[in-house]
Amino acid sequence: MDKVIRSLIIKGIRLNVTNNKAVKYGCKKFHTSSTHAVELTSVRYPKLKRGNYSRVTDSDIALFERILPGAERVITDPSELDGYNTDWIKNCRGASQLLLKPKTTEDVSAILKICNERNLAVVPQGGNTGLVGGSVPVFDEVIISTLQMNEIISLDELSGTLTCQAGCILGNLDNYVSEYNLTMPLDLGAKGSCHIGGNLATNAGGLRLLRYGSLHGSVLGLEAVLPDGEIVDCMSSLRKDNTGYDVKQLFIGSEGTLGIITKAAILCPQRPQAVNVAFLGVDSFSSVLEVFKETKKNLAEILSAFEFLDTETLRVGTDNLKMSSPISNHPFYVLIETSGSNSAHDEEKLTQFLEYMMTSGKVLDGTVAAETSKIQHIWNLRERVAEGLMHDGYCYKYDVSLPLLHFYDLVEDMRERLGDKVTRVVGYGHVGDGNLHFNVTTPEYDSEVMGLIEPYIYDWVAKYKGSISAEHGLGFKKRQFIYHSKSRSAVKVMKNIKQILDPKGIMNPYKTLPDD
Amino acid sequence: MDKVIRSLIIKGIRLNVTNNKAVKYGCKKFHTSSTHAVELTSVRYPKLKRGNYSRVTDSDIALFERILPGAERVITDPSELDGYNTDWIKNCRGASQLLLKPKTTEDVSAILKICNERNLAVVPQGGNTGLVGGSVPVFDEVIISTLQMNEIISLDELSGTLTCQAGCILGNLDNYVSEYNLTMPLDLGAKGSCHIGGNLATNAGGLRLLRYGSLHGSVLGLEAVLPDGEIVDCMSSLRKDNTGYDVKQLFIGSEGTLGIITKAAILCPQRPQAVNVAFLGVDSFSSVLEVFKETKKNLAEILSAFEFLDTETLRVGTDNLKMSSPISNHPFYVLIETSGSNSAHDEEKLTQFLEYMMTSGKVLDGTVAAETSKIQHIWNLRERVAEGLMHDGYCYKYDVSLPLLHFYDLVEDMRERLGDKVTRVVGYGHVGDGNLHFNVTTPEYDSEVMGLIEPYIYDWVAKYKGSISAEHGLGFKKRQFIYHSKSRSAVKVMKNIKQILDPKGIMNPYKTLPDD
Repeated sequence: MDKVIRSLIIKGIRLNVTNNKAVKYGCKKFHTSSTHAVELTSVRYPKLKRGNYSRVTDSDIALFERILPGAERVITDPSELDGYNTDWIKNCRGASQLLLKPKTTEDVSAILKICNERNLAVVPQGGNTGLVGGSVPVFDEVIISTLQMNEIISLDELSGTLTCQAGCILGNLDNYVSEYNLTMPLDLGAKGSCHIGGNLATNAGGLRLLRYGSLHGSVLGLEAVLPDGEIVDCMSSLRKDNTGYDVKQLFIGSEGTLGIITKAAILCPQRPQAVNVAFLGVDSFSSVLEVFKETKKNLAEILSAFEFLDTETLRVGTDNLKMSSPISNHPFYVLIETSGSNSAHDEEKLTQFLEYMMTSGKVLDGTVAAETSKIQHIWNLRERVAEGLMHDGYCYKYDVSLPLLHFYDLVEDMRERLGDKVTRVVGYGHVGDGNLHFNVTTPEYDSEVMGLIEPYIYDWVAKYKGSISAEHGLGFKKRQFIYHSKSRSAVKVMKNIKQILDPKGIMNPYKTLPDD
Repeated sequence: MDKVIRSLIIKGIRLNVTNNKAVKYGCKKFHTSSTHAVELTSVRYPKLKRGNYSRVTDSDIALFERILPGAERVITDPSELDGYNTDWIKNCRGASQLLLKPKTTEDVSAILKICNERNLAVVPQGGNTGLVGGSVPVFDEVIISTLQMNEIISLDELSGTLTCQAGCILGNLDNYVSEYNLTMPLDLGAKGSCHIGGNLATNAGGLRLLRYGSLHGSVLGLEAVLPDGEIVDCMSSLRKDNTGYDVKQLFIGSEGTLGIITKAAILCPQRPQAVNVAFLGVDSFSSVLEVFKETKKNLAEILSAFEFLDTETLRVGTDNLKMSSPISNHPFYVLIETSGSNSAHDEEKLTQFLEYMMTSGKVLDGTVAAETSKIQHIWNLRERVAEGLMHDGYCYKYDVSLPLLHFYDLVEDMRERLGDKVTRVVGYGHVGDGNLHFNVTTPEYDSEVMGLIEPYIYDWVAKYKGSISAEHGLGFKKRQFIYHSKSRSAVKVMKNIKQILDPKGIMNPYKTLPDD
């Protein structure tokens, strides 16, 4: 039970402020359900042709076994490979016959050198929590997993710089740096299984980008191996280093198509001593925006998250996951998190602000939590949406950026368009970053529904100059729509870069860049 | 006069807290002194050979005059060109015979297309406030100035995104966004004349990187023109957009060697309502670090700057610029700035913290300012150092990143090494970013002194895995030392990128990348 330390009743509504404790989030492990039902990607997309790559031979396997001695490092057992061939949202399934588990950068270099010489296509894989089919094979690419590259190399307490291998799990890193009063600059639902290398490769955004900015700012150093085995060492741990082009930036967000990230140095901010979370009910999306505007003004430097859920999204938690809502039903919900160094100051700011918002009628109902379990409960309503949607059967996932003024129109338009052909249409996400998660569910994959959603949704987003992938990347599923968000000239530069770094095209083929 | 609202006397030392007002910084214009005394770069570096570029002809000039009609857009008058040929610290002087002033992206595209076809080398120039000779010609490169590209295109108040042309002056942009309660995410001494395009091209760091992060994080969109005239449009104004490689990052910090930045979209944070500045005296550099550690812990989210000056640096202000110091003499000084949304909260945090630091004996003396003029006075002691050093004659400027533990050892070592051969050896800068400004002065350029400083200083920095250029870039003066801070593999990738974007090598030659 929360210890209620303050209770406001404004316009007949009780607003509780509970006692304050610094929060340490637990790590959640995503469970991959049985994968046998998942259609092979090559079957679902019959027009897609396998590239002219070699096929893995017994002598290749023998060579890899010499490079990676010891048990469980060269996997060829089909039943064991199945989980690595399939993405966790059961959208994509490849048919790789070989998984390799390097431990060191030198292992990765040796593997890639052989693959490049032998013209074997590869797919790098971290925690396999991606949402666009980027981390699983499309055909029979060799899977190079970072599962055994999980060493924390160093932590400079004074500057806050963490150096680690690419296969470290985000949640583990956050637990580690928390012992030094630091926090990882990114946080996302998959933190219990996603690898930091995958986070970097996909430029993961997540829940606190609003506060700590993008990985393009907080990654200080990076090491990657190019397809020919060359190790590109950009492993600075300095906050400022303007000596030549910032080569490491190329790998951030390139989804494993230019090389494999093997190490990183990341700037970790001071861990907040006081965390408060407010969960508010409002009557319309325009009220969500008004609350956002006022939140930025009033909570400024302590604001660490501003999320919204529509009422259908909340029902995913209450119906599918049997969670309870801390407030009564409303058309929209806002989750505001503050993080600061002085709990009394933060609570005063937050309470004053909410009192004003409720008095003004912009907020209809709300609860404020500062106690760990209640904060976690509220966050679960937001973070477990992706998991809850899976209970409906198949999920059509979209993750777009839109100007805030048109942000929710997309959901309303699509809900009308899809009608009763689907189980659910939901909109939720990071209002603070202009990032909408738009999801549709059906009992199973339905090509008619897919035909109604795509390319309509991409045209819609392009019309308002949004991004067809805010934080999930393009991966396999969205690469052909890149021109909806990027200019011809920018894609031309991308293709030139791909050509010089991966001339044979063995690195994660069929991903990110469109076919000509 | 400051209105003292609180006065602490701790250990016999008075600590004043003055009344609070939000601060609006003025814009300072750097003055370029007479340039006739500056030796031509081609004379000072006789071994450097001019590249095999064409020379500007009368028919070229006639063509440019057709592209850029109107007065003052095609400059060929040698006396007028002199200021543009010379950098403001009088270190470098080129011999360009042609300056062009485009107004639009299309103008830039048309100019570059001709230059590329004609094999004419070019140097892009913004406010010409660079410190490594990157913005002036080395030989007779055509100067393309962004002076007339100064349009503010749009401001999205809700998201805080400012869109503008590259030639806008940073200080003007900050004044503009301040009307909407926003602030530019970067601030530096040259803000009164530097152009935002130049800031981006050099990845300027400045005084508040500690708070708002690097430009790699806060630039949302960018437009650049490649040497062949192709306009690369990456002009997203979205906070999140993971659709393909982040091409715009390549131009940030490339010092005009890959293309000319013509437009940008920049995320502007909420403008702080309350600003406080503390100026403290401490007895040693290890005390500076202890104060920094405690500052991070106690002021966390409101900390916006942590700067230090050694006693010799303060004397540059008091001796050369006749400024007064607000506290008595000490071996080291620390400038702490806080920026927040609630002045009472911030003052309470800051005062409690300083009381603790003075009681513990780590801080010997201090003053706290919240009133605009006093804040500005304290900041001037820090911001006008570069200007003050020029009064000594010639300044050997270094801007390095070093691990904090070895940060000040460099200054002490060099002071001993140079002895009485020089006027002054000073160390100051952004402790919070691990960024030391190390400067030496002599009455005039002295090759013996230069021989004692370089390459010794670069070897010293490399030994501690620092950066030989934290925020100034490599430009003309430091490019040959790139391997002291970057790996061979990283520089190889840079050269490959240069080759595909600028195959003829016309873009700002002799800059950033080393000779083979």
